[in-house]
Amino acid sequence: MRHNFNSGPSILPASVLAEASAAIYNFNNTGLSILEIGHRTSWFQEVVAEVQATVKQLMQLSDDYEVLLLHGGATTQFMQVPMNLLNANDTAAYCDNGIWGNKAIKEAKVWGNVNVVASSADQKHSYIQKQFTIPNDACYLHYTSNNTVEGTQWHQPPTSHVPLVADMSSDIFCRPWAFNQHSLIYAGAQKNIGAAGVTLVVVKKSILGTLERTIPAIMDYRNHIEAGSLLNTPPVFAVYVMLLTLRWIVAEGGLTVMETRAKERAAYLYQLLDELSIFTPTVVTEDRSLMNAVFTLPNASLEKTFLELCKQHGMIGIKGHRSVGGLRVSMYNAMPMQSVQALGDLMIAFNKSHQ
Amino acid sequence: MRHNFNSGPSILPASVLAEASAAIYNFNNTGLSILEIGHRTSWFQEVVAEVQATVKQLMQLSDDYEVLLLHGGATTQFMQVPMNLLNANDTAAYCDNGIWGNKAIKEAKVWGNVNVVASSADQKHSYIQKQFTIPNDACYLHYTSNNTVEGTQWHQPPTSHVPLVADMSSDIFCRPWAFNQHSLIYAGAQKNIGAAGVTLVVVKKSILGTLERTIPAIMDYRNHIEAGSLLNTPPVFAVYVMLLTLRWIVAEGGLTVMETRAKERAAYLYQLLDELSIFTPTVVTEDRSLMNAVFTLPNASLEKTFLELCKQHGMIGIKGHRSVGGLRVSMYNAMPMQSVQALGDLMIAFNKSHQ
Repeated sequence: MRHNFNSGPSILPASVLAEASAAIYNFNNTGLSILEIGHRTSWFQEVVAEVQATVKQLMQLSDDYEVLLLHGGATTQFMQVPMNLLNANDTAAYCDNGIWGNKAIKEAKVWGNVNVVASSADQKHSYIQKQFTIPNDACYLHYTSNNTVEGTQWHQPPTSHVPLVADMSSDIFCRPWAFNQHSLIYAGAQKNIGAAGVTLVVVKKSILGTLERTIPAIMDYRNHIEAGSLLNTPPVFAVYVMLLTLRWIVAEGGLTVMETRAKERAAYLYQLLDELSIFTPTVVTEDRSLMNAVFTLPNASLEKTFLELCKQHGMIGIKGHRSVGGLRVSMYNAMPMQSVQALGDLMIAFNKSHQ
Repeated sequence: MRHNFNSGPSILPASVLAEASAAIYNFNNTGLSILEIGHRTSWFQEVVAEVQATVKQLMQLSDDYEVLLLHGGATTQFMQVPMNLLNANDTAAYCDNGIWGNKAIKEAKVWGNVNVVASSADQKHSYIQKQFTIPNDACYLHYTSNNTVEGTQWHQPPTSHVPLVADMSSDIFCRPWAFNQHSLIYAGAQKNIGAAGVTLVVVKKSILGTLERTIPAIMDYRNHIEAGSLLNTPPVFAVYVMLLTLRWIVAEGGLTVMETRAKERAAYLYQLLDELSIFTPTVVTEDRSLMNAVFTLPNASLEKTFLELCKQHGMIGIKGHRSVGGLRVSMYNAMPMQSVQALGDLMIAFNKSHQ
């Protein structure tokens, strides 16, 4: 049996895979593959409408918000957010809590001024800097809710008197969240809400349309809103897999159930990391991520040995990100507790045999 | 039986669908779904490498060219091409042969000056304007090789003394082409080379890096080249379907076989359109597309009746684009001659019954 601890693209529910595979032969009894249907058919428009409605339901959002399904990944949003929200002479506030937030900062600087109001760089991003002041004239505050690479996570959204923008790519829908405190939320699908190839963008309409810049048509959120997320050919299959994944979240019991499971997995794993002397978790207790647990072993040789052992037991994706090294266990929504326990058993045995 | 004449997303070979569906359960005997594997695994890097090599082989290109697999569709390329190739004070030459070329022109104007050197707007884009002069100082000449909506197609690339850029979204790999006369070629995958969600970009390296503009990281072709098309998480599944489709093209005999089949389908259909008095093809003979045949019936009522008849016989996707009306039959690489003949039989009967 495989235990898939990939950081993304990552594990998906078995039922989602079964339905996705079947739809490639026959989508929704149309006699056509999901890969062969036009995106302007009523068949696909119903898929888009159900995704949009389910996202709004899970986020408990009013009609002030629009749900968009875009190409390009979160990395494209690093550009698209300031393109739409930041005038050339204005300033946006950004939190620097790791590699992805830094990339967002770099791209925002192409379009206007950036004020990095908080940074955890002094401690290698092993915590979340939560104490900071946002300038009154900031157009928005941007934060990364979960730092996939460093293994830190916000457990309450930052308090902000300016529009709040969140990159939630790696922890969206892992728990209830104050989504309605945000003006813009984006997330690549390939962790908690589907397969790579589609990006969820949720935007409060009132923040759009205030810029002087000419926004390229494909980058202007207003055009996507007007076109009902069908401005150009969308990534049809990825949108459909998102629908299947959202249906699964709802059927399992919604965000409170996702949270219960996430906390159970994380509590079990972090307890072992704290108790077993051979493993050292790298993140301060209060900011540890429910999704990505990062830790080290005493030396590179032991890390290699442990990774090899994991591989022998069908456990994959545990090597740390190439930028920080160490080890990382990713436990997204679809991760069964049994896989985490199987890993735990291996960790206990490994610790014992290396005393 | 379904006959899928969709204009895109459109028909794919049955073997591609079977392999894609199977890979959602078990990709390449890894025991993992193609939707769950990391994009930096050797498994996926081999997929990317094979796509790149196969594209270069089919296009017969030297190592002066790079093959990129990007997010965003051709519509994103309308922005990305001038962002990378057109300085703010310089001029690019564009051919206006239809709705898609016009969109490309509009987006180029955001970044620099545009000289529309040729237009077929005077005749509702029912032909290709092939006589024109390109200014010596143009940064590049952009044309759309096949106009999906209007049903026209270039049958030789335009002669150009400046770098040639082609949007080949709807006829790429339908036949051998002078690919090496181009400096940049792009194509959304969802017609001849796969499913929606990935865009093929082939670029001659020597044309990059001459601009004064700061190009956003995700839009800079050089970054994608450097990262081997893995700058951010790629649309993994769509890339894999592209690989399966390219393998199918090669296995069937390559571009000369694709051309033979395309010509056979088109010759049969256009002959009927010319001979059967109830149907009127809208495009001049020499510029007719091998991929999309556009035609009209004497009135809207007859069009509706004919579309209804098609539907009863399992023939879908024949309604013309919402911007031009009429009827359109799309016949991409995977379209079997039997489907075109089945449609032909229906056309003959319909013509006879309405004499």
